[in-house]
Amino acid sequence: MTLSVFDAAAIKKAATSQLVFDTVRDALIDHAEGRTSVPPPLHLDFPDADGDCHVKAGWIAGATDFTVKIATGFYRNPALGLPANHGLVCVVSARTGQIRAILDDRGLLTAWRTAAAGALITHAMARSGAATLAVFGTGEQARLQAAWLAKLRPLSTVLVHGRNRHKAATLCDELNARGLAARPACAQEAAAADMIITTTPATVPVLDAAHVREGAHVTGIGTDMPHKNELPPALFHRARLIATDDHAQCLDHGDFGHAVRAGAAAQDSDIAAGLLLKAAADRPDTAITVADLTGVGALDAALASAVLGRLPR
Amino acid sequence: MTLSVFDAAAIKKAATSQLVFDTVRDALIDHAEGRTSVPPPLHLDFPDADGDCHVKAGWIAGATDFTVKIATGFYRNPALGLPANHGLVCVVSARTGQIRAILDDRGLLTAWRTAAAGALITHAMARSGAATLAVFGTGEQARLQAAWLAKLRPLSTVLVHGRNRHKAATLCDELNARGLAARPACAQEAAAADMIITTTPATVPVLDAAHVREGAHVTGIGTDMPHKNELPPALFHRARLIATDDHAQCLDHGDFGHAVRAGAAAQDSDIAAGLLLKAAADRPDTAITVADLTGVGALDAALASAVLGRLPR
Repeated sequence: MTLSVFDAAAIKKAATSQLVFDTVRDALIDHAEGRTSVPPPLHLDFPDADGDCHVKAGWIAGATDFTVKIATGFYRNPALGLPANHGLVCVVSARTGQIRAILDDRGLLTAWRTAAAGALITHAMARSGAATLAVFGTGEQARLQAAWLAKLRPLSTVLVHGRNRHKAATLCDELNARGLAARPACAQEAAAADMIITTTPATVPVLDAAHVREGAHVTGIGTDMPHKNELPPALFHRARLIATDDHAQCLDHGDFGHAVRAGAAAQDSDIAAGLLLKAAADRPDTAITVADLTGVGALDAALASAVLGRLPR
Repeated sequence: MTLSVFDAAAIKKAATSQLVFDTVRDALIDHAEGRTSVPPPLHLDFPDADGDCHVKAGWIAGATDFTVKIATGFYRNPALGLPANHGLVCVVSARTGQIRAILDDRGLLTAWRTAAAGALITHAMARSGAATLAVFGTGEQARLQAAWLAKLRPLSTVLVHGRNRHKAATLCDELNARGLAARPACAQEAAAADMIITTTPATVPVLDAAHVREGAHVTGIGTDMPHKNELPPALFHRARLIATDDHAQCLDHGDFGHAVRAGAAAQDSDIAAGLLLKAAADRPDTAITVADLTGVGALDAALASAVLGRLPR
């Protein structure tokens, strides 16, 4: 038996947005209902090269496959003309332990499952009439979050806030080319949108809770380490409904944890985001809602397995 | 850039025993002298399928590559006509994080580095005139330990002790075919050999310390989990010199840990095995010496990188 390796082009073709949405929705519900197995990740640091490696594994109980995902970040690479991030996903049979395939996806599936999770939860938690979106950040996830949310509901305007004006303008051009009405905005204007998605590696909050309007929904996806922080504790204090994709992770290294430690939210004040995909959230039109997403490893397993099922063998 | 995948046949050709011995010797010395980085492994259990997955990473400081090794054990596979163990080694650049190659070695490199480490340390610790070897166990490592030690010193006799007489006879035939004078032996006779290597998954000691002669050397390689135990605490009590391949691991889940917890050896009575490969052990011909090897992850990194350097690109 030869090891099957699929490259990013083949994976891109197999992973339709419908497949990604359906798989991520089901996996978030499985995770919310306790049917996933996600061991603590493995880390290796390379301080001399300003690099690190994270290995994450995940399994959805009863699924035929599990995955082991290797992701590296070497932050001097761009200066060498190389991408900072590399990685692959190894799909393994949960029945025999045989390696079923390597998905040499260059991080594509992680980007797409993150985009789908953000869009699904923002759509589920925002009030039905919400039509303006603000994205904080100008990177790949800023673009993907806007594009994927637009697949779920019409967006009248997309406001882009970034520290780098040139990058914000470039992202607006890209979104406009996709048929979205995007324009750069200052932080105060962006914070007043109906829906806000933050996608930055910020270590201090990117918006002022006082600028967020009643009836708004805010999703934070950038805070994935204890020293990062995108959403201010005061926003959680104002929120009527707080959702987390993984309670323990968000408490440990998400914006929710910052809010709890600041005394702005009770430790048990969150609800599992996946549950809101099963039954609509009960939210008055004047309520503020917040979702803190730190990334669930079991989504990688579900998506890789679903994509592998669509690839030619 | 397409991901390079090398199969077991190519790896077998590239990994000469000289390359494996040299690389393992250097890596054991690096590990003994603190120049390796080995994070805690990642585990995933599949109780319904009687399976598990272990992911180990390792790096030797300054080396151009590190490795992530995925190994699965699904213990009902043999009944399905499949091997119980599967896995691969992913070689990653420690300078850029790029995946350099996948070594689809089916566990070959792990088996060979284990064989080389056992042979090197047994050879370094046994007295110069020691010529009879006993192996406990009849599996792949029993065969490899005898064959690889024979590359380092002449063996007058190889005694094979196994619970299954048929398997012991088969292993003797295989060793005889390689030019070794092998024959089955009972535990008492085997324990009286000049050199003893235990390679079993035993949970109670496989030999009686009272049967081990003065001047003998014993290497245990099978104890890799807390509930396993091949060598009796009384043997450590009789030993003049105790070596461990990794002090913390051997204390946690090796035979050395059982001896320490039984009060038969002091917690600091061991020496790093790698140091004995650098400078010969000071051992009187009447002393008993013991080595407890639990497997060092950094050896995987060193060996995979060395083998990759010999593979056609």
